[in-house]
Amino acid sequence: MSTVTAFETVDVRFETSAMLDGSDAMNPDPDYSAAYLRLTTDAADGHEGHAFVFTIGRGNDIQVAAIDTVARRMIGRDVEDTLDDLGGLWRELVHDSQLRWLGPEKGVMHMAIGAVVNALWDLKAKRAGLPLWQLLARMTPEELVSLVDFRYLSDALTPEEALALLRTAQPGRAQREAELLATGYPGYTTTPGWLGYSDDKLRRLAREAVDDGFTQIKLKVGDRLEDDLRRLAIARDEVGPGIRIAIDANQRWDRDQAIEWIRALQPFDLAWVEEPTSPDDILAHAAIARAVAPVPIATGEHGMNRVLFKQLLQAGATAIVQIDATRVAGVNENIAILLLAAKFGVPVCPHAGGVGLCEAVQHFSMFDFVALSGSQEGRMIEYTTHLHEHFVAPVRLERGRYLAPLTPGNGMEMRAESLRDHRMTAW
Amino acid sequence: MSTVTAFETVDVRFETSAMLDGSDAMNPDPDYSAAYLRLTTDAADGHEGHAFVFTIGRGNDIQVAAIDTVARRMIGRDVEDTLDDLGGLWRELVHDSQLRWLGPEKGVMHMAIGAVVNALWDLKAKRAGLPLWQLLARMTPEELVSLVDFRYLSDALTPEEALALLRTAQPGRAQREAELLATGYPGYTTTPGWLGYSDDKLRRLAREAVDDGFTQIKLKVGDRLEDDLRRLAIARDEVGPGIRIAIDANQRWDRDQAIEWIRALQPFDLAWVEEPTSPDDILAHAAIARAVAPVPIATGEHGMNRVLFKQLLQAGATAIVQIDATRVAGVNENIAILLLAAKFGVPVCPHAGGVGLCEAVQHFSMFDFVALSGSQEGRMIEYTTHLHEHFVAPVRLERGRYLAPLTPGNGMEMRAESLRDHRMTAW
Repeated sequence: MSTVTAFETVDVRFETSAMLDGSDAMNPDPDYSAAYLRLTTDAADGHEGHAFVFTIGRGNDIQVAAIDTVARRMIGRDVEDTLDDLGGLWRELVHDSQLRWLGPEKGVMHMAIGAVVNALWDLKAKRAGLPLWQLLARMTPEELVSLVDFRYLSDALTPEEALALLRTAQPGRAQREAELLATGYPGYTTTPGWLGYSDDKLRRLAREAVDDGFTQIKLKVGDRLEDDLRRLAIARDEVGPGIRIAIDANQRWDRDQAIEWIRALQPFDLAWVEEPTSPDDILAHAAIARAVAPVPIATGEHGMNRVLFKQLLQAGATAIVQIDATRVAGVNENIAILLLAAKFGVPVCPHAGGVGLCEAVQHFSMFDFVALSGSQEGRMIEYTTHLHEHFVAPVRLERGRYLAPLTPGNGMEMRAESLRDHRMTAW
Repeated sequence: MSTVTAFETVDVRFETSAMLDGSDAMNPDPDYSAAYLRLTTDAADGHEGHAFVFTIGRGNDIQVAAIDTVARRMIGRDVEDTLDDLGGLWRELVHDSQLRWLGPEKGVMHMAIGAVVNALWDLKAKRAGLPLWQLLARMTPEELVSLVDFRYLSDALTPEEALALLRTAQPGRAQREAELLATGYPGYTTTPGWLGYSDDKLRRLAREAVDDGFTQIKLKVGDRLEDDLRRLAIARDEVGPGIRIAIDANQRWDRDQAIEWIRALQPFDLAWVEEPTSPDDILAHAAIARAVAPVPIATGEHGMNRVLFKQLLQAGATAIVQIDATRVAGVNENIAILLLAAKFGVPVCPHAGGVGLCEAVQHFSMFDFVALSGSQEGRMIEYTTHLHEHFVAPVRLERGRYLAPLTPGNGMEMRAESLRDHRMTAW
């Protein structure tokens, strides 16, 4: 028997804005940051639970304070009991009525709950000696369903339907796990496409992406139409017709403007159009999707909770579900979203980049492949080159494919030196 | 010329859970709280700007910290310039890309921006010597439209349409202002209906509400159907057929459960059914509204931003728009929501209660009556009896009607003794 004895939070910031890395039409100067959490126990194994919420600078201190509030409640808890019922823990935290008022189920407080939930999953995976994707992919369908809160989902997905989806995928698990370990999972790269990059840099990085084996790149758009036309022409010219090009407007447009703009860019053969408008606007996404069909619309990286994803799917508002590792309330809620996507037959292509989002989110796609959708078709994980060196187990890519991580845990643990060197002490 | 020189935030808490005041199916033990802000300037007039975010206890400290982050940015600003362009200030704060990442436009950070915006409106109203409703109702249509950010709204409401709505109401302003000052604005009371109250207390308070002149009461429901049937029978028996009874499920149900439950309660002649399910679930609200028509569905007190309200109206998901004074980003966003409601011809019946929400939200209904919808038909402001004594200018009701406040400001200023006595110093 062991107990959660302490936690530490760290306000980690990187001055990425100086390089225009990560610049897009809505986020001109992000300073990639992490509101970081480390949970410790008195168990002899010495394992810790690590997790973070990704932010882009100002306000990271508020996110840290919110994590403090939730993490404090873990102190003194029995580790085994807690890790044996992470579905119960999720419900306890998300349905705490006083904390819930601050969302409900969205924004700073919801992401703080996510950090604590994710740190506990990290601890659970390390104790099991497995990377998170493998831990999840080896749980029974019943155990997986018990992790999910079906409140507000039952009109689209019942526990029985979720169980059936997972059971259907059960026979092929071992074979797909072997396949994943052998050949990895497709990635695509956003590295060439940041809005602040020059045309020359775009061209060079697009070429390098193809040389590196990527079959899809993504460009940021939405600031000036003439720039988008020019940059898409450069990119298409450089990569040729065989490489997929997605674009990302980062919420820049209103509904009708999105339709007009996308129609203007459609000749470049778009793999998808990401975040055309407000991430909250289900009806506008659905209207845009209908108007520009067959161009696929993608969204989700700012999707606040499972209720939003449910509606996006019900309304046919998104052809690609882009989960994020730290936007919702942790592993459990992302499993709920994966189940919803599977129910509607919509592929999941996670959002990544930032600080450690690649390291974290890959686990969900790999779990999905082994134990749920059973497919890599039309699916890939976003990749950018930044900041991997700060993680204990950086992602490994080979010819544009993510190799399955083998290090136990959820992938979110940062190196002690990085935590020390990038700790913000005053703001 | 004067400058914003300082601010103070206070974590104010009341132990309301001990009395079961405010208890409902989702919030069994709220401790009504306020994350409170006071802005000061070096102007000779000595006026201050006060505002707060209402919460129900735990996490109020996080809300305070978020307000600190935003309020700090006001220090050193020119007061006149700032108050002359509160539309510009709103855009600056809400579109700060780094802070926006923490929502976007929802939850703790969005409400913090709301507190700062509201404190500036309080200051502006005090300097004008007018209560907020009157300050707003005397602004020109052009000035009012300039306060609103139409991003993500243009598919439902353009600036030109907003201007036309306000201009149409302009001729009758003076007459309606006189009418409001003479006879006030309808209220309804939730005091009898808290879920934790005994049947006897419900019966007694329902009787008192009618004796006090209220023409509508509201009951909390959604915990156990048999309790709801019994309590509605008691209430209907006590008040008779001439008094409207609304019910409030506080987000307790899933879609199909809501439909079934509402049908069971329909015989009691329901004025409206409030928050049947997740406040984020536009599609479920629309489906419920269609299924139980003509029973009106109401929602909005947890509506996170104007994009949500737009969709609720577009989808026919709500027959009554229930704005809240501190859930969105302040006065400007509530004006946007009032304009949307006017465009769709849907009445606004604000959420109130808690700490000071009655004092704050009445200004929006009164502004709407004088300068926008021009009507009190089907409209009323929620009222509960708690905690008014802590405010410098408590609401005044007469025969179930809110009298127009005459004290300059936004109504949110608490008494200095209350701030001192209910300040939380450790948690």
